[in-house]
Amino acid sequence: MQKSFKKRFTPEEYAEGILAHDRVMLSRAITLTESRLSSDRELADVVLEKIIPFSGRSFRLGLTGVPGVGKSTFTESFGKNLLNEGFRLAVLAVDPSSQVSGGSILGDKTRMEWLAAQKNAFIRPSPSGDSLGGVGRRTHEAILLCEAGGFDFIIVETVGVGQSETLISEMTDFFLLLMLAGAGDELQGIKRGIMELADAVVITKADGDNAEKARQAKQSYANALHLFPPKNSMWIPETHISSALTDMGMSDICEMLRRFEQTVKANLWFEKNRSEQNLRRLRQLILQRLEEDFLNHSLVKIAFEEMKKNVKTGAISPNKAAEKLIDIFRKN
Amino acid sequence: MQKSFKKRFTPEEYAEGILAHDRVMLSRAITLTESRLSSDRELADVVLEKIIPFSGRSFRLGLTGVPGVGKSTFTESFGKNLLNEGFRLAVLAVDPSSQVSGGSILGDKTRMEWLAAQKNAFIRPSPSGDSLGGVGRRTHEAILLCEAGGFDFIIVETVGVGQSETLISEMTDFFLLLMLAGAGDELQGIKRGIMELADAVVITKADGDNAEKARQAKQSYANALHLFPPKNSMWIPETHISSALTDMGMSDICEMLRRFEQTVKANLWFEKNRSEQNLRRLRQLILQRLEEDFLNHSLVKIAFEEMKKNVKTGAISPNKAAEKLIDIFRKN
Repeated sequence: MQKSFKKRFTPEEYAEGILAHDRVMLSRAITLTESRLSSDRELADVVLEKIIPFSGRSFRLGLTGVPGVGKSTFTESFGKNLLNEGFRLAVLAVDPSSQVSGGSILGDKTRMEWLAAQKNAFIRPSPSGDSLGGVGRRTHEAILLCEAGGFDFIIVETVGVGQSETLISEMTDFFLLLMLAGAGDELQGIKRGIMELADAVVITKADGDNAEKARQAKQSYANALHLFPPKNSMWIPETHISSALTDMGMSDICEMLRRFEQTVKANLWFEKNRSEQNLRRLRQLILQRLEEDFLNHSLVKIAFEEMKKNVKTGAISPNKAAEKLIDIFRKN
Repeated sequence: MQKSFKKRFTPEEYAEGILAHDRVMLSRAITLTESRLSSDRELADVVLEKIIPFSGRSFRLGLTGVPGVGKSTFTESFGKNLLNEGFRLAVLAVDPSSQVSGGSILGDKTRMEWLAAQKNAFIRPSPSGDSLGGVGRRTHEAILLCEAGGFDFIIVETVGVGQSETLISEMTDFFLLLMLAGAGDELQGIKRGIMELADAVVITKADGDNAEKARQAKQSYANALHLFPPKNSMWIPETHISSALTDMGMSDICEMLRRFEQTVKANLWFEKNRSEQNLRRLRQLILQRLEEDFLNHSLVKIAFEEMKKNVKTGAISPNKAAEKLIDIFRKN
């Protein structure tokens, strides 16, 4: 990597570059936010403060589905549609589990060959590993940087097997769940609770022999979604079928998102949701920091291990254990 | 209330009374846990530490459903069944919203007239108002006290309109959702995500003209539940119909719970879940205390209001705001 030879720019240079739609500068700024060096992080923070007035002006789409559902081919086909409609598209692939599963990251980029070559598209895989909290922070910052860089449609992609879906739905405007037809629905490995987050379920690979099964699956999901209570946005979740092979369904989905945007901008949910997301993020970050301080406290550390054992077996109540630990923390 | 005239017992007297199945002592100990006086709370803590080795030996059922679904009549009819099978039943009604809706509390007790008169049943409404965290702590303590008092089946009831369902599902072994047939399912006001918590959905009031509609609703919910991924317990959620008028369905539900208990004790989920619930509770309590300290810090308080405004409008990023607030907290 030869990090030491890499030129570092001033915060002004980064910000100006990003605002002038310089993709290399955007890319480098995102890399700064991902760095483990605190000097890089501090620089990133200054850049972020500079560009934040120019962020926020995009539609943020969260996209999830199990491996094999065809997220990348869907994104490529759907992305083509978006570019045709004049959007500038940034795709952020979030994969907190990739450290374990290994290397779906490079795969993502090569699987979106066409998109990766377009000047109005920007594809950025997230670095693997690290905590969910870290992934959340970095992804949020990447969204802001891309927006400042003039991208007005952001897709945040994640593998639908972990806890990252909730995280993603907390930083996007619309949550789209991709599903396969006839794969034994209950075995698709989507975590419980994810379905209820969905603003739309799209059955992929609805082509050839699979088309009829996809239509049936669509109906099943439509029936199921109907049983859920209304969302705060007052948006009624929809079900669609799509094929990345034939591009079928892509314009329907675009059209749906347009209707969604109209609905939630008219009823003011869009703005309200963004504000609430920001406040929730603030609270989460504070709690995270407070917990870190607590868990890194040397005396707490020792006592905590012991307490956990006793709490697990029920020898001490969680209340009493919490009280004792907090006492140790406060007194030292 | 003439609090000052009320006799206070020693922790030993409380504990001995509870363990000897003295209902008055049990009741008074629960009242102590609910008190706002710190001297009462300290006394309660000592009592809890004494009885905790005798807690845990019950089946804990969480029960929810919107107002009008017939929770109290269901509990009365279902409770009769449990008593017939030899259980000693405690019903804890949790209603964090009752401060607003007013007085469903006394109603609960009178609506379970038969049950309230049985020596093997104990009905305890929770006090209204206060924070959700407070409700959670007190309900958890009430469960432990009831168990020490020899109650081996605990029902924790809550109104299915708030955040209390998640709370309740975090402290019970089985989560039962009551639903009405044909009330326009999506309008029943059950919060999103609740359905996925359910280990069983029971359609109530399946009698008279409503019986056929209830059967249809059962089928709809069965189809919907089928689409959800398997639960960690490996239990497959069931749907049932019931009538508190004719007692129909009550023995089926008892039988289902027996099968559930066998399944999750055999696959060790039961114990594992209880341990995890305790650890989660410990973590939540610690975070709650840390956040309280943070929010009560006088300088943080002032800065926080300002920051919130700026975060809401997007003038400052949540990250930067969190950093600044944590700095203020640490430095003072």
